[in-house]
Amino acid sequence: MERTLRDLGEAGAIALMADILGTVGLPPGWLGPGDDTAITSLPSGDNVLTTCDVLVEGVHFRRETTSAEDLGWKALAVNVSDVYGMDGKPAWAVIGLALPGTVPEDWLAGLYRGLAAASSAYATPIVGGDTVGSHAGITISVTVIGQAATPRRRSDARVGDRLIATGPHGLSAAGLWALQHPEAAIPGPLRAQAERAHRRPDLPGAPHLPAGALMDDSDGLGTSCRLIAEASGVAIHLDRIPDDPAVKAIAGVAGADPRAWALWGGEDYGLVATLPPGAAVPPNFALLGTVAQGSGVWWRGRPLEGEAFRHFNG
Amino acid sequence: MERTLRDLGEAGAIALMADILGTVGLPPGWLGPGDDTAITSLPSGDNVLTTCDVLVEGVHFRRETTSAEDLGWKALAVNVSDVYGMDGKPAWAVIGLALPGTVPEDWLAGLYRGLAAASSAYATPIVGGDTVGSHAGITISVTVIGQAATPRRRSDARVGDRLIATGPHGLSAAGLWALQHPEAAIPGPLRAQAERAHRRPDLPGAPHLPAGALMDDSDGLGTSCRLIAEASGVAIHLDRIPDDPAVKAIAGVAGADPRAWALWGGEDYGLVATLPPGAAVPPNFALLGTVAQGSGVWWRGRPLEGEAFRHFNG
Repeated sequence: MERTLRDLGEAGAIALMADILGTVGLPPGWLGPGDDTAITSLPSGDNVLTTCDVLVEGVHFRRETTSAEDLGWKALAVNVSDVYGMDGKPAWAVIGLALPGTVPEDWLAGLYRGLAAASSAYATPIVGGDTVGSHAGITISVTVIGQAATPRRRSDARVGDRLIATGPHGLSAAGLWALQHPEAAIPGPLRAQAERAHRRPDLPGAPHLPAGALMDDSDGLGTSCRLIAEASGVAIHLDRIPDDPAVKAIAGVAGADPRAWALWGGEDYGLVATLPPGAAVPPNFALLGTVAQGSGVWWRGRPLEGEAFRHFNG
Repeated sequence: MERTLRDLGEAGAIALMADILGTVGLPPGWLGPGDDTAITSLPSGDNVLTTCDVLVEGVHFRRETTSAEDLGWKALAVNVSDVYGMDGKPAWAVIGLALPGTVPEDWLAGLYRGLAAASSAYATPIVGGDTVGSHAGITISVTVIGQAATPRRRSDARVGDRLIATGPHGLSAAGLWALQHPEAAIPGPLRAQAERAHRRPDLPGAPHLPAGALMDDSDGLGTSCRLIAEASGVAIHLDRIPDDPAVKAIAGVAGADPRAWALWGGEDYGLVATLPPGAAVPPNFALLGTVAQGSGVWWRGRPLEGEAFRHFNG
């Protein structure tokens, strides 16, 4: 039997691609795959950030459950979030679209209204792209280019730093549950807040940190901590996850663990960072833990475990 | 009946998207959709070019007839060609990939070997991207970022300019015919040359023109002339298409019109430009015609007609 990508898994596929591309070197100071964005530079000295996200119908969204407007917003916002995750400023975007001829005109108009709304909200003009036909479902590929005076990497955490984050934690997972359970008795304002966090996440902006590691919290706080720990060769001790009233209330109705939503729910699009000793905690960030010698992520002294979304399961 | 993209057509879909995005303005000096690449700038003064191409299995390629290596080469090269079409230098690329779990590991390795070969040939490091699962076919989205001291636009042709082009003209169409007819009696070296032009197009590089319009010839010489004429508000008088021995020989065997292949075959990836009076014709370019008052494209005094590839026909 020929080995397929399903046999290989996501990590195996990424390793294979990195191995082949490794034969073509990068200029000094550039950063390839593995962080929120790539880091490159231009002759005049600009540090440029590039990030790309692909959304596939039936894998990442369904037209029955996600409006075209929300999808457009989210498709751009998740890439802007990656630029913020390097402490950068988004600059422009291009959109690659593969669309079956059967897609309604109104759906395309909705997608572009959502893209235009996020483009305006995050000052990221859409300057071009490619729109082509497709025999199967819709695929949306968004590339955002940004810049940063000093890009902050996942690998910049140091022993003695403090772990800080903006939140929300678990609010997108709570919003998804609420959307799937319209009959559930959730107080109106909390339902609205959580559903909006899932459908149209608001982004915190670039924090302009003095030093330390930084990344966006798109895969859940537990995964963010693991990635910073691995990239920096340190242990992350998580001591506290701020309570969110909407997450707590909806988890209560759902019979779910609000901490699991915060740690592994994902799609929260806040920022997770580490801060050197003595530096003031920036506005909108809360203190959640510490960076220590060792490896892995620890919750109040015990190893934290979880599992990530698996690709290639289609 | 709800209107679909098939009803709307490619031009209608692009107009709809442009209309919605038009509500979000571009900074002065930037150029949005409609040329080979977008033009943007960064604070330090770098002019940045961004271009994106999406390739869909079953629409733009078939795994039965295109090797993974050739596809990888072409996916990157066509975007580099767009950067050369602005008189720019490619700088880096990101790759968005949607892949079914059933794709063989060897196919992905082949795709990346082709990407790496083009990346190396055109000094365009691949610095990142996104690889996700798909329930349907393969979609490849490549974004290339480049730079140009003075980007050359399609709209820069002026009355009195001369029309120049690098060629090849029709060689990719001849190569496709040859690949589809392995039994046809075509002299070996001419077959090899044409097949290679179709499978792994070589690019001419940035010509560094003093002024005038420029674009890559990806849709055939007739289409290139039409686009320059429309964007610049001029007439293009085409008087000559250089003979290519391989195109002539293969068209002879095929019973095809070599001029039709040159004008409408497409995928040749040379450059078409206009040159102000007095400027020397750069190396590798040939003189094909003139730019005059009026509109449209003219072949030795008569209107030139043809048709383009239609999208959304899936």
